Amino acid sequence: MAAAKTSAAGEGKAGGALHRYRSHTCGALRPADIGATARLSGWVHRVRDHGGVLFIDLRDHYGLTQVVADPDSAAFKTAEAVRSEWVIRIDGLVRQRPEGTTNAELPTGEIEVYASEIEVLSEARELPVPVFGEPDYPEDLRLTYRFLDLRRETLHAIIMRRLAITRSIRQRMHEAGFNEFPTPILTASSPEGARDFLVPSRIHAGRFYALPQAPQQYKQLLMVSGFDRYFQIAPCFRDEDPRADRLPGEFYQLDVEMSFVEQEDIFQTMEPIMTGVFEEFADGKRVDTDWQRIPYDTAIAKYGSDKPDLRNPIEMQDVTEHFRGSGFKVFAGMIEKDPKVRVWAIPAKGGGSRAFCDRMNAWAQKEGQPGLGYIFWREDEGAAGAGPIAKNVGSERAAAIQEQMGLATGDACFFTAGDPARFYKFAGLARDEVGRELKLVDEGRFAFAWIVDFPFYEWNEEEKKIDFSHNPFSMPKGGRAALEAAEAEGRDALLALKANQYDVVCNGYEIASGSVRNHIPETMVKAFEITGLGQAEVEDRFGGLYRAFQYGAPPHGGMAAGLERMVMLLTGTPTVRDVALFPMNQQAADLLMGAPSDVTPKQLRELSIRVVAPEKK
Amino acid sequence: MAAAKTSAAGEGKAGGALHRYRSHTCGALRPADIGATARLSGWVHRVRDHGGVLFIDLRDHYGLTQVVADPDSAAFKTAEAVRSEWVIRIDGLVRQRPEGTTNAELPTGEIEVYASEIEVLSEARELPVPVFGEPDYPEDLRLTYRFLDLRRETLHAIIMRRLAITRSIRQRMHEAGFNEFPTPILTASSPEGARDFLVPSRIHAGRFYALPQAPQQYKQLLMVSGFDRYFQIAPCFRDEDPRADRLPGEFYQLDVEMSFVEQEDIFQTMEPIMTGVFEEFADGKRVDTDWQRIPYDTAIAKYGSDKPDLRNPIEMQDVTEHFRGSGFKVFAGMIEKDPKVRVWAIPAKGGGSRAFCDRMNAWAQKEGQPGLGYIFWREDEGAAGAGPIAKNVGSERAAAIQEQMGLATGDACFFTAGDPARFYKFAGLARDEVGRELKLVDEGRFAFAWIVDFPFYEWNEEEKKIDFSHNPFSMPKGGRAALEAAEAEGRDALLALKANQYDVVCNGYEIASGSVRNHIPETMVKAFEITGLGQAEVEDRFGGLYRAFQYGAPPHGGMAAGLERMVMLLTGTPTVRDVALFPMNQQAADLLMGAPSDVTPKQLRELSIRVVAPEKK
Repeated sequence: MAAAKTSAAGEGKAGGALHRYRSHTCGALRPADIGATARLSGWVHRVRDHGGVLFIDLRDHYGLTQVVADPDSAAFKTAEAVRSEWVIRIDGLVRQRPEGTTNAELPTGEIEVYASEIEVLSEARELPVPVFGEPDYPEDLRLTYRFLDLRRETLHAIIMRRLAITRSIRQRMHEAGFNEFPTPILTASSPEGARDFLVPSRIHAGRFYALPQAPQQYKQLLMVSGFDRYFQIAPCFRDEDPRADRLPGEFYQLDVEMSFVEQEDIFQTMEPIMTGVFEEFADGKRVDTDWQRIPYDTAIAKYGSDKPDLRNPIEMQDVTEHFRGSGFKVFAGMIEKDPKVRVWAIPAKGGGSRAFCDRMNAWAQKEGQPGLGYIFWREDEGAAGAGPIAKNVGSERAAAIQEQMGLATGDACFFTAGDPARFYKFAGLARDEVGRELKLVDEGRFAFAWIVDFPFYEWNEEEKKIDFSHNPFSMPKGGRAALEAAEAEGRDALLALKANQYDVVCNGYEIASGSVRNHIPETMVKAFEITGLGQAEVEDRFGGLYRAFQYGAPPHGGMAAGLERMVMLLTGTPTVRDVALFPMNQQAADLLMGAPSDVTPKQLRELSIRVVAPEKK
Repeated sequence: MAAAKTSAAGEGKAGGALHRYRSHTCGALRPADIGATARLSGWVHRVRDHGGVLFIDLRDHYGLTQVVADPDSAAFKTAEAVRSEWVIRIDGLVRQRPEGTTNAELPTGEIEVYASEIEVLSEARELPVPVFGEPDYPEDLRLTYRFLDLRRETLHAIIMRRLAITRSIRQRMHEAGFNEFPTPILTASSPEGARDFLVPSRIHAGRFYALPQAPQQYKQLLMVSGFDRYFQIAPCFRDEDPRADRLPGEFYQLDVEMSFVEQEDIFQTMEPIMTGVFEEFADGKRVDTDWQRIPYDTAIAKYGSDKPDLRNPIEMQDVTEHFRGSGFKVFAGMIEKDPKVRVWAIPAKGGGSRAFCDRMNAWAQKEGQPGLGYIFWREDEGAAGAGPIAKNVGSERAAAIQEQMGLATGDACFFTAGDPARFYKFAGLARDEVGRELKLVDEGRFAFAWIVDFPFYEWNEEEKKIDFSHNPFSMPKGGRAALEAAEAEGRDALLALKANQYDVVCNGYEIASGSVRNHIPETMVKAFEITGLGQAEVEDRFGGLYRAFQYGAPPHGGMAAGLERMVMLLTGTPTVRDVALFPMNQQAADLLMGAPSDVTPKQLRELSIRVVAPEKK
């Protein structure tokens, strides 16, 4: 399989005026080049034999050019020998394609190259994963032969788009006065968040480095070090159990931090950058500007989610009062018994048929619910509505509901009752399902919002204690004074505290998350104290950062946006592994390089570790 | 130490027209702003008390502004309380500095701000590492309090310069048609090169990932995947024993790869990029363009090094013939006995005094040599020269040496004799020393060259076998045919084989290294075979890449340049840890974050490893 030359003159000629491998890329030739001699190199995309004339689609990173060889050409014999994915160099004359054979889809589609010489640069065995035509193949095979998979037009284009998006982000961040700081990858294990990847130290036997789950502490340290505006396209590492929608092992985030800012400054800075990136790559879809700010509580109440898909116009409402003391005894009884109980209504414009309502009811049962109550309005009953609930509550209440919800004949409304803390997720799913079923979701839009005012604490029912609801780095709204006041008031006041914390949501995904940080050591200690942890714990967990805060820390805040998620949204790619170059499979194995792998006893000895039998599950 | 306000009105006002923390940065105010109200936030750089008037130098990332408070100001009480490195916000009136107190060194040096209000945003304890004045402190203390160290003007500026250099490289690589590809950081252990950092896999008990020593295989796989021009500012990881001139653990390289290229293409592409970066940051120093190409053998013979400092004009020459059969019996005898013996001459323009020659001789003895022979030329003896060697060889030969070396009265020449393979390094050191001592080195220049034609193989004296002299990825000049011919001829022919491999040297440092790769599987196997390794070994070591080469690999090549080394050269920083943000110390410990650290038994159990007593050395 060594490289063979079709003509001994090949190399000699290349030593002259022509480049050894190419005068043009495979995407370059145009009608203006007709009559010129061209040299191309690339992969044999496919070979077609049209009555003794051979057509080779020659492919490189830049495009595809049609190469022709007929029995009159000196290159014909080699042309007959080449197979898919061989790498060849061809010399030839650029000529117009015969009438009727031009290809308008191809930038080079008006020309072809009549080959005078073909040199095989590298042969290819039979392909375990074909490139041409991109037939479906099992993912593990695609990952084992990722170098073939990446040659496929679709994946190749997604990767190039990822790189372009990354570049655009960098450019925009620089233009906004940020600098990109490379933070360490060998760092300390932090007991926070997900599981760390550990790296045994050879020099310090028995001790371990950890790969960063995110550069959180380092970026805050950079602010304390006086660097004003940090960003990084940062590799992050989490040893999590396989999940279909996450890259195993490593992933990237656009990581941002700013000094001397409030929440609003971060919004004003990052919103145009994110909008700009999306507009640049939206491919005709509309991108929201001037993003909504939705408080967490509102998001839950209106959308049943803190990452609502705002392309779906459905907004839920509280209709408890219409059911209080009504003839629909199930709801009325629940409302009577427990002041926490609410009834939420999911309006369904255009869903006003028994068939649709029954389908939704069946869907709810599939989701493990007893069902999904509804009223629908049709000509027959007018505002009194149809369906069992309508009958039970009576026409007046059904009409009132119709009015509150802004519904009309032909529409429906679904209901869910209970403690919202327990049912809001299902309500959110039902909202999604109704929107999808009724095709209310605007597919041509990137719908953005800031979700704000997240709760600072949450109740840990298992351990019967107060916990941080997101991360302990955020500043509670109102600072230490608010913490102390709420502590004096008790649990409900603590749970009502809000954090200077926010998410960016887009089309139902959380694509970024951030906060204004707690930069005052005493406030940090107080915030931990309320969760039952002492100062020693703070020092142990966040030693470097806590220490730094003792020596003059600026107010600061920032955010981190998931790069892969943005690329998935912008390329419409449903599989996260398809937006990464050499991803591991869902069992966290790199099938191409064979990682993880066995290592030598010498390597383990040097690291002072030994492999033991795995834990029984 | 909680944040205290000097005035209850502070926050209220910020809610109005003014930003909460700043209307300007500390580097922004100019005479045009005189009369305006400004709000600044930053660190207290220092406080001076001039007869009851307080001067606070307020510092942020952007600059320094002088803030004044006198007893008439409402801010005076707080101004008296603030200490170095407290973070404060000040409001005040911008005014002209009094005549004779302007500071031309400072962009804000014509103005000062008369403080009407000071708010303490964060206090600072007594500083373990002062910022102002940058007094010398032990490195471990500086690394423990890196956030203070990084506030120092010098280090802050070096880091910002590093970031700017990185950005410039990225920009130039993009302009040259490259894309930046993020390659995996969790990958497979490779038994090649330095020691890997290992990462135990939790899911695959007993197996390990490794951090990449460089993305070598991945970048070649990218070429096989059809991406034409790759670059990356790539993090690299090597578990090496501490060395003063290397960052422990992780470092960055500009990593480059191109398809369908020969060595010359890589030179033509990368030389303008590297030159451009150096010109941009050279700070007045001249940068070589149109770099010399120096074959490895020539570099050794002329400079005694494969990374010569070309700012030093000294070029050594072979003067063996002048000593053959001469009266200087030591050299003449050596030449007689062994055809390998050469005498090399190190010319020393301006070194023609006994004092200088004796000093060099003493230096050589300190370097563990018996001494350093010399001739020097002064008025007294004319071309016959002075010193013991001159006497022994006689005036004719001394004059002939003077002529060959282009020396004159007032100059000297040093000699070293033996097998060049054994003495060339010392000769190179002597050349450096002479150049330094005689101040021949042009300090105002970045002197570049490509060192080319490295030997492909070298002799492993210990194991009495042929080894790869650099890396096994390079294509030998002449390809497989040359390998086979040399193999048939024997050891000397194999050792004479050259590789398509090259270095970039600058001012005596190797700053980049690269090669045209061996992309033909059979040639790869043959190259390994000659070193005594079989195909199985190739597959074991370079499985992913070797497999990829079976399926159509383009000819490709590239290089990698050390980012930290470039930054050190461009900033004149002698310590590599000073060009990194949060470096580990020389014992590979991160003193700020406390890495490596102990981990919990649960973490080890999950990873199926146990710590054992370290190996006895």
